[in-house]
Amino acid sequence: MRLSLNYISNCIIFTSREKNMKKSNRIIAGAMSGTSADGVDVALISITGHGLAMSARLLGHHQLPYEPSIREQIFSTRSSGIIGLDNLAKLGKAISHSYARAVNEALAQAGIEAGDVEAIAAHGQTLFHDPPHTIQWLDPALLAAETGCAVVSDFRRADCAAGGQGAPLVPFADYILFRHPTKNRILLNIGGIANITWLKAGGSIEDVIAFDTGPGNCISDHLSRKHDPTGPGYDLDAQRAKKGQLLEQCFERFLQHSYFWQPPPRSTDTPAMIALFDESIRSEGHVSPDDLFATAISITSISIANSIAMFQTDEVICSGGGAKNPLIWQTLEFLLNSRQISLLKSDDLGVSSDAKEAIAFALLGTATLDGLPSNVPSVTGARRAVILGSITPKP
Amino acid sequence: MRLSLNYISNCIIFTSREKNMKKSNRIIAGAMSGTSADGVDVALISITGHGLAMSARLLGHHQLPYEPSIREQIFSTRSSGIIGLDNLAKLGKAISHSYARAVNEALAQAGIEAGDVEAIAAHGQTLFHDPPHTIQWLDPALLAAETGCAVVSDFRRADCAAGGQGAPLVPFADYILFRHPTKNRILLNIGGIANITWLKAGGSIEDVIAFDTGPGNCISDHLSRKHDPTGPGYDLDAQRAKKGQLLEQCFERFLQHSYFWQPPPRSTDTPAMIALFDESIRSEGHVSPDDLFATAISITSISIANSIAMFQTDEVICSGGGAKNPLIWQTLEFLLNSRQISLLKSDDLGVSSDAKEAIAFALLGTATLDGLPSNVPSVTGARRAVILGSITPKP
Repeated sequence: MRLSLNYISNCIIFTSREKNMKKSNRIIAGAMSGTSADGVDVALISITGHGLAMSARLLGHHQLPYEPSIREQIFSTRSSGIIGLDNLAKLGKAISHSYARAVNEALAQAGIEAGDVEAIAAHGQTLFHDPPHTIQWLDPALLAAETGCAVVSDFRRADCAAGGQGAPLVPFADYILFRHPTKNRILLNIGGIANITWLKAGGSIEDVIAFDTGPGNCISDHLSRKHDPTGPGYDLDAQRAKKGQLLEQCFERFLQHSYFWQPPPRSTDTPAMIALFDESIRSEGHVSPDDLFATAISITSISIANSIAMFQTDEVICSGGGAKNPLIWQTLEFLLNSRQISLLKSDDLGVSSDAKEAIAFALLGTATLDGLPSNVPSVTGARRAVILGSITPKP
Repeated sequence: MRLSLNYISNCIIFTSREKNMKKSNRIIAGAMSGTSADGVDVALISITGHGLAMSARLLGHHQLPYEPSIREQIFSTRSSGIIGLDNLAKLGKAISHSYARAVNEALAQAGIEAGDVEAIAAHGQTLFHDPPHTIQWLDPALLAAETGCAVVSDFRRADCAAGGQGAPLVPFADYILFRHPTKNRILLNIGGIANITWLKAGGSIEDVIAFDTGPGNCISDHLSRKHDPTGPGYDLDAQRAKKGQLLEQCFERFLQHSYFWQPPPRSTDTPAMIALFDESIRSEGHVSPDDLFATAISITSISIANSIAMFQTDEVICSGGGAKNPLIWQTLEFLLNSRQISLLKSDDLGVSSDAKEAIAFALLGTATLDGLPSNVPSVTGARRAVILGSITPKP
């Protein structure tokens, strides 16, 4: 099964909707930097159609890691929760320069002129998220000036203003890209935070359920920064977690938190999950760092699996950096296969796992340019569907 | 002369450009809160034409003072230069609620439906300004949601991205509203900071010179908050300044600062001016607060007059809260009349002094909606004219 899907992915992307391509297509650059703050992903997308009838074709994907100083500043700001206004302004410029460089490099690699890009749909860097308060930081005018493109940005605020959590927003794109007439599907993205989108077989957008399951890589990354400060910032191939033992009491304390019992809509943020972990290990006494890594991975895997178990599903389609973690993957594969659920990577269905979130924001930005809503009220808890984001004109 | 101008202002506003009104007119709400953080001014404007050929008619003006808690938070944030991200997000919401309430009250007073407003052009609250870094804080999606109107906001960033100071931006509107074929004119606005715009008789937009002269009311307001914490937050009718004596050494130290010798373009911000004042009085020993008030007013008046003296001008047209300060007015009137320069209030020319900055942002926002640039590169130092701001769609 995997093989045939891989074959499809090598041929063409999102074939099922290519037939809609009679309408003129537009090139949109989706640009995303997640809560793991590893860098900026840019997906160059050719989009045909409008709203839920959009189809998309990936023209290029590029990831630019943040410079270490920017990454450190994002983490220190997020963990302290406080910032000088001068540093806030400077950080906004540094983030925007990174976005601009990532977009320009992606365009150069793909041989696409900036003048042919209708807009950059830029997520910005989440500095704070505690619904209904949320800050995605970016200077869209600077990004526009350095690329020559219009920018759509600040997607979450309109949903918050409509009473929603401002997250997750990717389900709109999940529905467009992955809905299936006869299969129930779950899209699982494991970034700093992990989230799932449930797509009912043959269902409408109103049937979509999605929420943050809890931590993705954020606790493991936090442990890497703490116990391996000169390393890559994450536990490569789960090397440390593999050497550790589960701290059962910490594990149980963590998962007993009320967040994991809240019905959707629910969304969380990395500082909250890291704080909860630090709280959960407080009474452990001396423990081996490797055990902490192992426990973090188990918490991530089991909180994801518990969330998936709430739904009837045929396939779980995984994306994000956590999909590359062998321990998470093995745990999920074991738990899901025992229930006859297939665990796939989004690449297997022709959507690059690394690019998926950037692709999603390209679709969200296109909806905004078309004056169409793109939040999913059943998912965010918003009172109504609204147009997301602000448009900064081409300079 | 005043009488006849007052008569004109009672009849109709901006009559000289009414002849362009054949084109369909649009209603724009300009919304402004300045560095003095006294509240939100809303000017409802009917605009005809495009770009520099725009004409404007004031349909209504409303000022909503900030609630004291918001005002205090803005000042404490600006003076400390540091903020928690949760408070930053909450302050953004509080500012946006104030903007929304001010717009909704202005619309109700004028009997205009939100559906008839093409957009709100909202300045946002300056939290930080040290070019090329600037933060005008506002949640445009929340403002849009609470008014039902599209919002144009964040005007300064695009100019900064083009190498400019992001300020002043009002000269674009000054040129549209006040240019004269045979008179050299200076527009003087005295808010927290004071700034002037010089309009050459019969000149083009490229001839415009404008810059921040230095402090407006910000030092006097700072002294009021310090020495009269339960008062209105400013020195009403210059009562305290009138009782004080000029501290000559402080006065001279202040005006010797290099800022006052910089050629334009130049812009400054209230924390910098307040810090300079505090520095200038440091070696004074014990002084009467009234003397500080008197010295602050002299600094404001003389730094304005020195800036005006750089230009050949027939009229100085004053607006902003400082125009109501009798000591500033008398000082300027004395200094200008001795040079045969008329000192007028913008009200005398039919443009409400209190509403002028809000009117200016309505014009700037309209240019953005039309896809036209509205910075004045000769004024801001930008490399080129650019479209300013981001557009948040009507919800």
